[in-house]
Amino acid sequence: MTKSNPGLFFENFYVGMVLRHATPKTLTEGDVALYTGLTGSRYALYSSDAFARDGDLDAAPIDPLLIFHTVFGKTVPDISLNAVANLGYADGRFLAPVYPGDTLSAVSEVIGVKENSNGKTGVVYVRTTGFNQQGDVVLSYVRWVMVNKADAAAPAPTPIVPDLPAFVPADELPSPAPYWEGNYDGTLAGSVHSFEDYEIGERINHVDGMTVEEAEHQIATRLYQNTAKVHFDAIVQASSRQGRRLIYGGVVISIARALAFNGLANAAEILAINAGRHINPLFAGDTIYAWSEVLDKADLGQGQGALRLRLIATKNVSGCDFPGPDSSDAILEFDYWAAIPLRASFAV
Amino acid sequence: MTKSNPGLFFENFYVGMVLRHATPKTLTEGDVALYTGLTGSRYALYSSDAFARDGDLDAAPIDPLLIFHTVFGKTVPDISLNAVANLGYADGRFLAPVYPGDTLSAVSEVIGVKENSNGKTGVVYVRTTGFNQQGDVVLSYVRWVMVNKADAAAPAPTPIVPDLPAFVPADELPSPAPYWEGNYDGTLAGSVHSFEDYEIGERINHVDGMTVEEAEHQIATRLYQNTAKVHFDAIVQASSRQGRRLIYGGVVISIARALAFNGLANAAEILAINAGRHINPLFAGDTIYAWSEVLDKADLGQGQGALRLRLIATKNVSGCDFPGPDSSDAILEFDYWAAIPLRASFAV
Amino acid sequence: MTKSNPGLFFENFYVGMVLRHATPKTLTEGDVALYTGLTGSRYALYSSDAFARDGDLDAAPIDPLLIFHTVFGKTVPDISLNAVANLGYADGRFLAPVYPGDTLSAVSEVIGVKENSNGKTGVVYVRTTGFNQQGDVVLSYVRWVMVNKADAAAPAPTPIVPDLPAFVPADELPSPAPYWEGNYDGTLAGSVHSFEDYEIGERINHVDGMTVEEAEHQIATRLYQNTAKVHFDAIVQASSRQGRRLIYGGVVISIARALAFNGLANAAEILAINAGRHINPLFAGDTIYAWSEVLDKADLGQGQGALRLRLIATKNVSGCDFPGPDSSDAILEFDYWAAIPLRASFAV
Repeated sequence: MTKSNPGLFFENFYVGMVLRHATPKTLTEGDVALYTGLTGSRYALYSSDAFARDGDLDAAPIDPLLIFHTVFGKTVPDISLNAVANLGYADGRFLAPVYPGDTLSAVSEVIGVKENSNGKTGVVYVRTTGFNQQGDVVLSYVRWVMVNKADAAAPAPTPIVPDLPAFVPADELPSPAPYWEGNYDGTLAGSVHSFEDYEIGERINHVDGMTVEEAEHQIATRLYQNTAKVHFDAIVQASSRQGRRLIYGGVVISIARALAFNGLANAAEILAINAGRHINPLFAGDTIYAWSEVLDKADLGQGQGALRLRLIATKNVSGCDFPGPDSSDAILEFDYWAAIPLRASFAV
Repeated sequence: MTKSNPGLFFENFYVGMVLRHATPKTLTEGDVALYTGLTGSRYALYSSDAFARDGDLDAAPIDPLLIFHTVFGKTVPDISLNAVANLGYADGRFLAPVYPGDTLSAVSEVIGVKENSNGKTGVVYVRTTGFNQQGDVVLSYVRWVMVNKADAAAPAPTPIVPDLPAFVPADELPSPAPYWEGNYDGTLAGSVHSFEDYEIGERINHVDGMTVEEAEHQIATRLYQNTAKVHFDAIVQASSRQGRRLIYGGVVISIARALAFNGLANAAEILAINAGRHINPLFAGDTIYAWSEVLDKADLGQGQGALRLRLIATKNVSGCDFPGPDSSDAILEFDYWAAIPLRASFAV
Repeated sequence: MTKSNPGLFFENFYVGMVLRHATPKTLTEGDVALYTGLTGSRYALYSSDAFARDGDLDAAPIDPLLIFHTVFGKTVPDISLNAVANLGYADGRFLAPVYPGDTLSAVSEVIGVKENSNGKTGVVYVRTTGFNQQGDVVLSYVRWVMVNKADAAAPAPTPIVPDLPAFVPADELPSPAPYWEGNYDGTLAGSVHSFEDYEIGERINHVDGMTVEEAEHQIATRLYQNTAKVHFDAIVQASSRQGRRLIYGGVVISIARALAFNGLANAAEILAINAGRHINPLFAGDTIYAWSEVLDKADLGQGQGALRLRLIATKNVSGCDFPGPDSSDAILEFDYWAAIPLRASFAV
């Protein structure tokens, strides 16, 4: 019997199955620095302890996307080692801030299985929960992936497809981590625009582009301890359909969000992930651009609001004409809620 | 109205204009590790807490060049997003040590403007000041950049060119951070040479070469939160004069200084930047070499001295024949003061 | 007289010569994050403070291979700047755990010299000792390198070849750092297999492959402050026999060990390095695979055992057919002892 992990195949998953994932990880200032170096993120809340302290926090918390990628990475050896495609995310909620020194672990429960009509693959739905070292839930989300069957003759399970919300309702949003008592410094944060300045339907081109190198996405994906071999093994990938290494979709999400600083600097904190899908693959040498649309707004009270944003990332074509998710240049559609201070929270 | 930052153009700048820059950054041990990984710096003072404690410091301070790049990076979105060229630096002073955990922010004041005779561009002079979270000044320097006009018809301002010192006078140099009470360990620092061993006019070839990859300079420049698109966007750069991404000049400064360890290991601490200019662009795949000339010396008292050094970096041609700044291979001329212990401060 | 370091040549070494190496380094959480990002290591003991605390440690210790590369890096400017080849390692012992914040320094003693029959090179044997800031020995190992003579006419020294053990005897192994009181969590660690499950002679294919980029090995090698120019200078290397930059052998060791997680997840802690040699060079773009053989087992008492493992890394050919060290695809043979909990130490 081999001691190396062959991963699970579609017929191994069943609804109710619980998987405790390996390799808890302590997130540190080292991870934060590397995340900045790999994404170029400039949101003040995640860059400056002093800024976060103005918001009544003890220190700069960890960027929610770094939490997401870390928790996601843990699930890969158990859920998606034999995955054909990562199909989507839903109902993601960031339930407690994480600080350098906190240790994250992850557990997934299978909540749906549905064999595809070809009999060779199926879709597995899991709810993944990320915990800190005290056992507090810091993140919960659903994702679904297409997984190969090892044995095409294995019988199809009774299909169960979970009922997933199209988005996290505004009245269920987690509270923003910082609290601003009329002292929010928009100039330091990088923008004069408050919650009130954004209109539903407004579209923002984030202007800048970022070319991704092979070394960069590999370092990022290893930092997240994500082991999916499609990102790392040029030899195996040479005989794949794409012929080369694929960039982990989380790299795309993080770079697109870093680009979104230019237009959304005050919407630093992601509270919830409503939906997300990777439309086309990204390869080393490609350049990412991004634009956003305001889908909804919600006043959360206490001088804070939230914007529901749809982030579209494209490759090798700028966002200035707002290419839609059906465009052949689109690589990502990411629907999320981000906290943003109301005008009354601003110092000036 | 767009919410993304178009940057300022030449006609937007006026003498006396003050710009508080966005995204304060807490420098951490993570930044230090990444700086080491990207530059190969080996100066003991910035590598070892134990070594720094021997010099009466609480811990290893942050390398002044990492401070410089961090402060500089904050100014880019406001000062040089529409810059044609970064022309020079002067009167840079490192006024207080920075330790992991300190948060840096930056403010710039426009101190000069001068339209070029072509009517399409102009030169903007700014004094930039970097602060820590207590509001102490940690760095002050002047730089000047050539910036595009948005509207060629905008009237030329009254030209004001600041009077800048050719170098920081020795009697105005900041005190070195460490204090050595006859316990300086040159062997651990990597050299037996004290202040007395260096002669004015002496030239030192730093021997080693360092080839720079696209991923390396991008990670470094993002770590400094420098957003200048010439470093990151291969699509836009493809239609530029150079046809490709330019490497941020700060990457060249740091690698050249890391190479300078081989010959200047005891001159670890940069006290002042007298002048600097980027002579030719560097591209990924090029190899950096460096040599130094001792321009001046000053005894600072208390067993410490300072060397005024001119660092010349070249690309793809070694420093063994001491190519001058007018050489077509030269990429950097950097004139600075570095502290170095006197013989009496050495333990052996 | 030049102030830059020309390195030592074969005729400069003599038995009994002691070299205190430059640039002590404080290892931090920053180094750990970068090590994870560059290797993809997933051993829970080195990833999670919480996991390490379950093993009665204060925090996650530093991975022994990061200690090894750091200590090794310090020796390069003194020992192997003029080396032709790094021939082997022996008798390596990790004698005390290292934690973030500890500062490492290194001293080497020459224990053997033997001129080669060509009269142009010779082999130098050194014992290198790594210390922490309290002066405790954290690592001791022997390596031998082939070094050029500066002057072929220099007389050959009396040959002295040290008597080196083929492996560290089991009864001399350092104690494992963590202590598990029946609470070892194999699921979190990534494997259900205990000491008892491994058999002498058993071979494990680690399945996954990792393609190495130029930027990645350069960042790693600079992080270790290893200055050997063969890794960094594309211009000089263009005229070498290989025609290009060589990847530091320590990069191969660390990636192969990271791959070995898949099959050896509970054998996280390297206690001793018995032997190691770099069989063929690795270049950027090559893909590393690895497999392991269990050479021996030892019950260390207190619920802990050790496996003596032979790790074979290959390039561009997977480990599924267990290619031996004589294979033209082999790049590394690395013989070491790793601690692993006994079944009685497992919580479940």
